[in-house]
Amino acid sequence: MIELPPAPIAELVGFDLVELGEGRASFAMDPAERHYNPLGTVHGGIAATLLDSAMGCAVHTTLDEGERYTTLELKVNYVRAITEATGRVIASGSVIHRGGRVATAEARLTDEDGRLLAHATSTCLIM
Amino acid sequence: MIELPPAPIAELVGFDLVELGEGRASFAMDPAERHYNPLGTVHGGIAATLLDSAMGCAVHTTLDEGERYTTLELKVNYVRAITEATGRVIASGSVIHRGGRVATAEARLTDEDGRLLAHATSTCLIM
Amino acid sequence: MIELPPAPIAELVGFDLVELGEGRASFAMDPAERHYNPLGTVHGGIAATLLDSAMGCAVHTTLDEGERYTTLELKVNYVRAITEATGRVIASGSVIHRGGRVATAEARLTDEDGRLLAHATSTCLIM
Amino acid sequence: MIELPPAPIAELVGFDLVELGEGRASFAMDPAERHYNPLGTVHGGIAATLLDSAMGCAVHTTLDEGERYTTLELKVNYVRAITEATGRVIASGSVIHRGGRVATAEARLTDEDGRLLAHATSTCLIM
Repeated sequence: MIELPPAPIAELVGFDLVELGEGRASFAMDPAERHYNPLGTVHGGIAATLLDSAMGCAVHTTLDEGERYTTLELKVNYVRAITEATGRVIASGSVIHRGGRVATAEARLTDEDGRLLAHATSTCLIM
Repeated sequence: MIELPPAPIAELVGFDLVELGEGRASFAMDPAERHYNPLGTVHGGIAATLLDSAMGCAVHTTLDEGERYTTLELKVNYVRAITEATGRVIASGSVIHRGGRVATAEARLTDEDGRLLAHATSTCLIM
Repeated sequence: MIELPPAPIAELVGFDLVELGEGRASFAMDPAERHYNPLGTVHGGIAATLLDSAMGCAVHTTLDEGERYTTLELKVNYVRAITEATGRVIASGSVIHRGGRVATAEARLTDEDGRLLAHATSTCLIM
Repeated sequence: MIELPPAPIAELVGFDLVELGEGRASFAMDPAERHYNPLGTVHGGIAATLLDSAMGCAVHTTLDEGERYTTLELKVNYVRAITEATGRVIASGSVIHRGGRVATAEARLTDEDGRLLAHATSTCLIM
């Protein structure tokens, strides 16, 4: 199990690591009005933040001593609008491929009933 | 010119609309420690938030009376790390294609010297 | 089970439908020199063709009478080079989300030992 | 100017390099029935093949002696259906960012009147 340093972004947005395993990680958040876009739903960037955290952290668990990673790209599909009424949401990320120089990961954002809200994939460079 | 409703997310993250034209929009933000991931750089979700705002807002400017849009997907490439030392960053979005049912947009995130930090594309559904 | 019309592209590239179920479809191909890029490996567009076919066909199986679909976007990650020596490859697609207007799907391209070669996601508009 | 080795894929699909410059490349193709999907339009994988070629080749022009590249991922947006009636199509790729280890590129597929048919971005690893 890997000890993660504290992340100011988690304070700002209000999300927490709730699960961490080899090649996977989950974060939870309670959607609130402060996350809203002008349309009155949670801004897509907030979902992207959770999904990116889950995927990056999943990749992080696969690093050897002295290795680090950086996210090259992120792609998010939004399938349902999120509001305060959605209740707690969970972003669960897992590594799809771990090569020597590159890792790819995927993540799903769901509500507590498992309804899919958004999903994502990402490419990370291992250094 | 379209009047945008206030966005709580802009308060939370700390970014402002700085330009709005037909099919384009720009937002600016001053990176700060509160935006940092555990690696000590601005979290990719923050860049995604700015880029998504710029693209969504660019699409918004093309809407006719009674039309609205929703973002179907977003893809972000990260090309340089962002820190407080980067200084003010600007996300400039523009519409690539505006069809009857679907619009696509792109955006670039740069520093004040025009150095590219991240870039993105997005697909929106027009309803 | 849905009867698919013949596809000239399948003739040209040389791939076959090998499995079709509710919300999923698989295509198989034998990589050959005619698929090569100038670098001496199977061109990324060929992998994209198989993955797109698998995802589109998976979405196709969910259509009701009178509905049709079009692919809005496709994203492919390439994780291992493919050559003639790879042997038969299989692209397996499945629907992630099926809404009223939009469907998303994912697909994986593997060799016969299940080694991952590429993976993809896609967004389709239902009309 | 860089001399490109012959590509079997270009023979199979039927496309040609029509422009090559520092950080950019264009390929042209005449859409034909052999490129069609079961829906009676050019398969998305063919557009992906052209766009990928244009972006990869654009990145190729930036390589130093002894460097090579591989495409990590590709994302394509399809904005108009392509048929034989579309006439000649041109995929024009250009490098967005060229770092030491990673390059990103974009490409647009248009008809001879400049109407946009599809657009794409890609991430390449420099080795």
